[in-house]
Amino acid sequence: MKRRHPILTILLLALVACAPSGPGSDSGSEGSRTAGGDPLPSWNEGTARNTLLSFVERTTTAGSPDFVPEAERIAVFDNDGTLWSEQPLYFQLQFALDRVKAMAEAHPEWQNTQPFRAILEDDREALAGIGEHEIIEIVMATHSGLTTDEFASAVEEWIAIAKHPRFGVPYTDLVYQPMLELLSYLRDHGFKTFVVSGGGIDFMRVFTERVYGIPPEQVVGSAGSLEFAMVDGAPTLTKTAGIDFVDDKAGKPVGIHRFIGRRPILAFGNSDGDIQMLQYTAPGNRTALGGIVHHDDAAREVAYDRGSHIGNLDSALDEAPARGWIVVSMKDDWSKVFPSPELP
Amino acid sequence: MKRRHPILTILLLALVACAPSGPGSDSGSEGSRTAGGDPLPSWNEGTARNTLLSFVERTTTAGSPDFVPEAERIAVFDNDGTLWSEQPLYFQLQFALDRVKAMAEAHPEWQNTQPFRAILEDDREALAGIGEHEIIEIVMATHSGLTTDEFASAVEEWIAIAKHPRFGVPYTDLVYQPMLELLSYLRDHGFKTFVVSGGGIDFMRVFTERVYGIPPEQVVGSAGSLEFAMVDGAPTLTKTAGIDFVDDKAGKPVGIHRFIGRRPILAFGNSDGDIQMLQYTAPGNRTALGGIVHHDDAAREVAYDRGSHIGNLDSALDEAPARGWIVVSMKDDWSKVFPSPELP
Repeated sequence: MKRRHPILTILLLALVACAPSGPGSDSGSEGSRTAGGDPLPSWNEGTARNTLLSFVERTTTAGSPDFVPEAERIAVFDNDGTLWSEQPLYFQLQFALDRVKAMAEAHPEWQNTQPFRAILEDDREALAGIGEHEIIEIVMATHSGLTTDEFASAVEEWIAIAKHPRFGVPYTDLVYQPMLELLSYLRDHGFKTFVVSGGGIDFMRVFTERVYGIPPEQVVGSAGSLEFAMVDGAPTLTKTAGIDFVDDKAGKPVGIHRFIGRRPILAFGNSDGDIQMLQYTAPGNRTALGGIVHHDDAAREVAYDRGSHIGNLDSALDEAPARGWIVVSMKDDWSKVFPSPELP
Repeated sequence: MKRRHPILTILLLALVACAPSGPGSDSGSEGSRTAGGDPLPSWNEGTARNTLLSFVERTTTAGSPDFVPEAERIAVFDNDGTLWSEQPLYFQLQFALDRVKAMAEAHPEWQNTQPFRAILEDDREALAGIGEHEIIEIVMATHSGLTTDEFASAVEEWIAIAKHPRFGVPYTDLVYQPMLELLSYLRDHGFKTFVVSGGGIDFMRVFTERVYGIPPEQVVGSAGSLEFAMVDGAPTLTKTAGIDFVDDKAGKPVGIHRFIGRRPILAFGNSDGDIQMLQYTAPGNRTALGGIVHHDDAAREVAYDRGSHIGNLDSALDEAPARGWIVVSMKDDWSKVFPSPELP
């Protein structure tokens, strides 16, 4: 394979940076989540909220010059950092690391093999020295050699027990309440909502329906290779070593065309990995809206943008004004970040 | 690329076999198409019809032991030979040949280059001598180097003017009326209908919504490679030379998992290219139904199965009884083949 998963390349830095911080010291304002007919109760008054409301009204009101037929109301959302958190480590990579530990008993050789030994011993110094080859080894060892059903069960189990190091809750609790409201609001207006993420498609599909209301057939993601065979009379799909498609950067418009076959009219991302998806959807000269979730809320979540090793947001931030993409300030535009009343 | 498009390998034989036959000599019985509450008016009384009706009732009636929640009612259909005709030549290959002729003026070199010269001169003897390398050349020359929008327009134009050699009507008129009824019937009962075909995804998506009521995002097919770029400020997806995914044989369950992410409960095919999709959907021990359209109607369409160079149906026919797949006889089970009153 010539193309390598870009996410892999940052695992190294991420591993080093993922030391758990303390529990959230500032819970931020709880915000009003009253329904009262407001479709976006966790969005504060402001440009972002107004632009979203006005865009949906313009595109869904019959007779409006910007009216878009229901079949063409495709909305696409990046996942990591856009629909749920991605710090201190992409949640799927945390899954891979936890899985190495869970699989260790069946792999006694890992006790003496890097990078597995370093993971098992939480040896951050050794982990800091590993290269891309070892990173690929980690992902392959944890994401292949299983049937698709076995992999889905492994993800299910992990979601049920794993806890986020800072917030101490299951990872699926760390979805963004304002984005859940936006997804529902769009669907209530005839939009079909899709995830378009660099994350693994088999990983995400385990929870997207339950958590986002987005069914498996509306999830686009990076994909490992698969092999079909009848095994003892049972049809079996096995995840094999190899990456078939990387749904990141210029791969995102490709994935949208390949899986959806229609050009979206709304796209939301949070990093430079989403630029091409935003350009494809909302270049600035068609009825379409681009949006960027800007992580500027150190108190309630994390503050990062330019130069971050995860979710680097740089060129997209520069390009936003000219193309009319809304930049959503988590701090200013959201009255609530996570759904749980216990969380900010 | 190690994998080669299996359809390509039969183009050679197909080219030789595609001499137009005369217009349909026997129009067959017109059949009753009265609605009167019958969801399948073009299906004659018999096992096939009864099995379909009973399967849909069993899986969609609340309280039934075989009840399937609406979200899981996924039905997949092969295209060529299952939803529309595929003789005397896969329609997409006819499109490729016609496109060589349409593009000839811009390619004066083709006058002296095989296999293009043979196509331009309808030189069947020379065509009979070409190999796989030349066949790939034909597909690449006609299906790449365009933007996705340009390719869609080329398909649109071809559909508007091209006529089937035997029936003298546009190719999209040669869809099967009973299958259109089945698609509607399933959707009326909460099924989501998908095309899962070896045909090109960009080719099929141009007409599936209009003709089958199946939107682009519910079409799975073979896919060429794509490249995204901003060209003079405009987001552009270009079809490049290369095949990314072959949605045939063992590729069909892979395509289903990759694009849909759920296991279907109903699958319909017509050839050995559909065996793995049928096995994956309906191995015989789960609530699911497999179906095979058997082309046994020489009078109204074409009769072919074992050993046919297009739509070879052999092992699937042998495997059908043990797995409970219904074999639909076009001759006996369908009172009408095509929608138009002018056609059988």
